[in-house]
Amino acid sequence: MSFRLSTCSTSLRAPLARLTTTPVTRRHLSAYGYEQTKTLAFTNYGEPKDVLRLHGHSISPAHKDLVTLRFLASPINPADINQIQGVYPSKPTFSTTIGAPEPTAVGGNEGVAEIISAGGSVKGFQRGDWVIMRSPGFGTWRTHAQTTTENLLKIEDKSGLTPLQAGTVSVNPCTAYRMLKDFVPLKEGDWFIQNGANSGVGRAAIQLAKLWGYRSINIIRDRSDASATEAMKQELKNLGADIVLTDKEAMDKSFRNVIKEATNGGREQISLALNCVGGKLVNSMAKVLADNSRIVTYGAMSREPVTVPAGLQIFKNISYDGFWVSRWSDANPEEKKKTVEHVLNLVREGKFKDTPFDEVKWEWETKGEELIKAVQGTLEGFRSGKGVFVFGKT
Amino acid sequence: MSFRLSTCSTSLRAPLARLTTTPVTRRHLSAYGYEQTKTLAFTNYGEPKDVLRLHGHSISPAHKDLVTLRFLASPINPADINQIQGVYPSKPTFSTTIGAPEPTAVGGNEGVAEIISAGGSVKGFQRGDWVIMRSPGFGTWRTHAQTTTENLLKIEDKSGLTPLQAGTVSVNPCTAYRMLKDFVPLKEGDWFIQNGANSGVGRAAIQLAKLWGYRSINIIRDRSDASATEAMKQELKNLGADIVLTDKEAMDKSFRNVIKEATNGGREQISLALNCVGGKLVNSMAKVLADNSRIVTYGAMSREPVTVPAGLQIFKNISYDGFWVSRWSDANPEEKKKTVEHVLNLVREGKFKDTPFDEVKWEWETKGEELIKAVQGTLEGFRSGKGVFVFGKT
Repeated sequence: MSFRLSTCSTSLRAPLARLTTTPVTRRHLSAYGYEQTKTLAFTNYGEPKDVLRLHGHSISPAHKDLVTLRFLASPINPADINQIQGVYPSKPTFSTTIGAPEPTAVGGNEGVAEIISAGGSVKGFQRGDWVIMRSPGFGTWRTHAQTTTENLLKIEDKSGLTPLQAGTVSVNPCTAYRMLKDFVPLKEGDWFIQNGANSGVGRAAIQLAKLWGYRSINIIRDRSDASATEAMKQELKNLGADIVLTDKEAMDKSFRNVIKEATNGGREQISLALNCVGGKLVNSMAKVLADNSRIVTYGAMSREPVTVPAGLQIFKNISYDGFWVSRWSDANPEEKKKTVEHVLNLVREGKFKDTPFDEVKWEWETKGEELIKAVQGTLEGFRSGKGVFVFGKT
Repeated sequence: MSFRLSTCSTSLRAPLARLTTTPVTRRHLSAYGYEQTKTLAFTNYGEPKDVLRLHGHSISPAHKDLVTLRFLASPINPADINQIQGVYPSKPTFSTTIGAPEPTAVGGNEGVAEIISAGGSVKGFQRGDWVIMRSPGFGTWRTHAQTTTENLLKIEDKSGLTPLQAGTVSVNPCTAYRMLKDFVPLKEGDWFIQNGANSGVGRAAIQLAKLWGYRSINIIRDRSDASATEAMKQELKNLGADIVLTDKEAMDKSFRNVIKEATNGGREQISLALNCVGGKLVNSMAKVLADNSRIVTYGAMSREPVTVPAGLQIFKNISYDGFWVSRWSDANPEEKKKTVEHVLNLVREGKFKDTPFDEVKWEWETKGEELIKAVQGTLEGFRSGKGVFVFGKT
């Protein structure tokens, strides 16, 4: 991916000091149509609170094949944090094009933006269009950006959508969608099983499965508070989950019988498992799978590896695969566009509900420390919702 | 699979007692063309030495769609032992059709037999044809059997082949063949890596790869005797191995550099791994694989499970699959026939060498205890060769 950001360079430290101590109360367009913009940026890997800075610079008027974007909503995904920590395989682009003296990267990989101006040779995109990022690594935690359209996917119909809905469709719903479609050919009535079922991906999988007629067995973490566990079970059932169990229940020896009973005495087979937890829970799940099933890993919340008994692999032909939506998006941009459009249609029709989000308002005058605190907060365990920057009409 | 063995029943204990204490010195055809036959059979699961018995019965003349077989060569595979122990997922057929009062199974799953007579409605098979078993579970440790042709695959051209060659092609060479062909589309010059490289499958993979222009990295167990290790390395290189390392060398931190050097500074990718060992060795192998590679497990000699780091699955898209030639054969009988014919052509052309075998002669007068000892001997570790019953002209 190549960024072509035309910038009017300002030094890094000066605006930082100014922006975090004396916020400018109103963005202004400078002479000749330059856009003032702010980015959450970092020059070195580390903890977000230590390395992220709110950095201001300006963007020249869009010309030739360039478009200028105004961001509308950009989520804070756990992967974004890992990227800042330097432990994520997809590296951000460090460059001096955002007016910093040292190579600097902008945080965030997902988001939706509006095109506010387009150069003369831009085709297929125009002012007012909503766009999402074609690939990760763009840097979406900023008020504005300038780029070529090859880095963007246009949302063909933005009617009836909120920025939050459009800005959070690329990662979690796409992950759930492709995992349900690309590994095992499920038919109406078929079962799958998943852990981390109340995660963004898990909730998306429950809803898509329900729409497609698949039936789901969902595993959530056991809460110390039994009523909280019951509330979560009910919440997922309301989304369309057929069965919801805790990890404790799934590791219990009664699990096989529970599953057998649920699947018509074991006559209905379970042939797909989605895993974002890891550890021994996956072995419990594997034991209830039919021959020739696939276990797809897309996360490792427990940080424990998956242990594979050879017998399951050889004699039951259970395959263990991985899925990373970033890789898939890079390799299949057209399919990504179709998947996104499909989910957004479902959202518009009221058939697909958002994951609970914590909206973090990013106004022109919002202080850097507030934004950075929201990023750092995502590190603290798995919240019911996740943070999303929702930008004011700056 | 259904067996239709027409037998002249004799009691189990009487012939056992007779056969193991006072062997009949010459087989005789009884009146009306009945065949006298002997089987290594068992009625209960357990250690081969405890449960196997040499059991005699007779077979009626082949009529209608039945053929009578005389076995020529039947290997003793480790899986056969596990089957007798009751710990193998493919169960033998227990029946009273071999003239035993209790349901009894015949040991052995692989072998080649000659058709010595065919009923009037048999089509496509005739006296003198060589056949192998279409599926496992037939019971090949016996001098004769009677069955329908649906359980058999005919060897179209037996010229230039020994019974030993034809009788050992179904399991190991087929396993190696399909694992090299069905998981990753390898081209000439491409690399794969395997452990247990001196096993029957490993040797077959080395030779097939060489013929197809693939390059192999081969891992063998470290021997306490350094000269024995070197001799084994040389033996595999003579078969066509490009690189041979010990498991100790593969677990050493120098391994990555050794592989990097071998693969043109890492520019040539390794995209397939074959695993019959398990444990941490598999993690060493996984680390040198390219993105989107597949690790195919077909055995677990170390009895240690494989641990899968989530990062490898998600970010490198490494898949962990299993392969079981029995399942494949059941599902693909026509492909099995083609694979067998292809390997036998290579054998005939001198391009494919047998694994070293220990021939165990099974003459009419061979005592049960000798045959059982040969089976039990296969349990004692991994020998350079493996036992094969080669039947006399009984």
